[in-house]
Amino acid sequence: MSEKTTNISELGEFGLIDHLTNKFELKNTNSLLGVGDDAAVIAISDEEVMLLSTDMLIEGIHFNLMYMPLKHLGYKAVAVNVSDICAMNGTAEQITVSLAVSSRFPLEALEELYDGIRIACENYKVDLVGGDTTSSTSGLIINISVVGRVKKEEITYRSGAKEMDLLVVTGDLGGAYIGLQVLEREKEVFKANPTIQPDLDGHDYIIERQLKPEARKDIIGFLKELEVVPTSMIDISDGLASEIIHLCKASNVGCYVYDEKIPIDAKTSMMAIDFNLDPSTCALNGGEDYELLFTIKQSDFEKIQSNPNMTVIGHITDATDGIYFIDKNGSALELEAQGWKHF
Amino acid sequence: MSEKTTNISELGEFGLIDHLTNKFELKNTNSLLGVGDDAAVIAISDEEVMLLSTDMLIEGIHFNLMYMPLKHLGYKAVAVNVSDICAMNGTAEQITVSLAVSSRFPLEALEELYDGIRIACENYKVDLVGGDTTSSTSGLIINISVVGRVKKEEITYRSGAKEMDLLVVTGDLGGAYIGLQVLEREKEVFKANPTIQPDLDGHDYIIERQLKPEARKDIIGFLKELEVVPTSMIDISDGLASEIIHLCKASNVGCYVYDEKIPIDAKTSMMAIDFNLDPSTCALNGGEDYELLFTIKQSDFEKIQSNPNMTVIGHITDATDGIYFIDKNGSALELEAQGWKHF
Repeated sequence: MSEKTTNISELGEFGLIDHLTNKFELKNTNSLLGVGDDAAVIAISDEEVMLLSTDMLIEGIHFNLMYMPLKHLGYKAVAVNVSDICAMNGTAEQITVSLAVSSRFPLEALEELYDGIRIACENYKVDLVGGDTTSSTSGLIINISVVGRVKKEEITYRSGAKEMDLLVVTGDLGGAYIGLQVLEREKEVFKANPTIQPDLDGHDYIIERQLKPEARKDIIGFLKELEVVPTSMIDISDGLASEIIHLCKASNVGCYVYDEKIPIDAKTSMMAIDFNLDPSTCALNGGEDYELLFTIKQSDFEKIQSNPNMTVIGHITDATDGIYFIDKNGSALELEAQGWKHF
Repeated sequence: MSEKTTNISELGEFGLIDHLTNKFELKNTNSLLGVGDDAAVIAISDEEVMLLSTDMLIEGIHFNLMYMPLKHLGYKAVAVNVSDICAMNGTAEQITVSLAVSSRFPLEALEELYDGIRIACENYKVDLVGGDTTSSTSGLIINISVVGRVKKEEITYRSGAKEMDLLVVTGDLGGAYIGLQVLEREKEVFKANPTIQPDLDGHDYIIERQLKPEARKDIIGFLKELEVVPTSMIDISDGLASEIIHLCKASNVGCYVYDEKIPIDAKTSMMAIDFNLDPSTCALNGGEDYELLFTIKQSDFEKIQSNPNMTVIGHITDATDGIYFIDKNGSALELEAQGWKHF
């Protein structure tokens, strides 16, 4: 190629996907929704639709085997896919696992990885139904595709948020990012002096948030019991700020998010401060929490308010009002996404 | 890991998959078939089932960008997945594409790749509905998952072959393997002296068999028109011998395959002889032809005999009779699989 070339980092991950897929049109009437939400939607019967999503994890980019045990990696690879189905208000049922490994991995290492996959399958009640296993020229690559289903009247897209809806987040945020900082710190200490044991005492919660995140399948169950169908939903893989922007843009709305409402665990806050980081910034821009962000009608507020897993953090406004973060002093700042940058 | 370790090459690809997945049980009633056929089978409605398959292609293992144009790679990645759905007698409808690329790939290279994917999508009438795009520490990795569907009464498994059935193969075999030999030869010449242009004249057919194989979606259409439902089917990705053995073992039958019946294109034969290779050996053990191997009842023979795309190459026997290759002298040799070995 002697012509002008463009570095892919100029587009960013989402810009790149957009650019590469915008020439593709959906032609099968069964393809109800393609690229652009947490999962694709495929027609299957009068009552239900099928959901399909896929995620690739690359050693050295998404995980570091120096501190990520293979069993945890297997578990996490399943969880992040199940999370995509949860984000459509659906139930994950089947996965396929494609695996590429270099010869430095003995069979016993792969057994560890598949133990983690199996435990996640049992926990989330999904079946491993297929896959591909091959060798790799370098490192470990794992791609999981997940199939789920949801009743037509319960499917939740990113695009359904309406003015006056409440913005709700599950669990607490920023922990996975702070957990990663602790692991990276201990890795550097270990590299400098391998006789020093990693000091992970008291950091169980945040480290588990990073190494063994859970898909919030429980929330989908709560919502069903409470008879609440969110008006829109997305999972938080890239940081709260980035996901709020995705959801608002897909729904063509604006929103106000209140700093003081963002749920952050006390241990996350303390460690953030230790690292000279603002806990809110970790929640907004740290990734991999795999909590759910959704909107509900105001009339549904009473149904969810007593559930400790859900926190109202703001409300939806007209698109022309913009997307604003109201800090603890009451100042409104336009929200910007930092998120994860893989390119 | 200080304990005893086992090298994964000791198990081979299929042994490894078996070993890693045998602890997994199917728990959802919708999971009708898991690992072990060309695609998984998922219940969706009274009339139809859904098919799901996945394939990972790794630079340096499955393709070499020195002679594989990115557009062809994109096309082939889709075709091999569609082929898996064809092998279940189904129709592919949706794909997801996961892509990992290192920064040495400019945007224009990825556009080439996606052009190939798009042309294949249009050709096979499948929709790109999702994916994942990330960076890679080395080279290009592409994982495609495919969803298809088939009427319940038309689904064809590997396991349905019965004694007296006829063994049928589509198209011609060995071409993709010989095409690869030509490309490898010219690569070596080029590496030794980059001023010498590759000599690919007259090798269009076999090179296209390697670089741009087609899924035999047309055959699935012919079978429908002819009202023939094969009793068993598999696609030929690893070489005829390996696939015959898979099919016979899954069906618990034996078979006789006749050397003189195996369809080999004249150009494939000539080039094989140029390379001092036996053309039949190329057909039996060369991979990547992506033709279909299936069995039909004898009573269906009249329906297919005038179709030039299908050749009867043998017949099914009792399992105790074994799996035999009858050479041109009439000698019976037990069939052994060489196939592709990635580990």
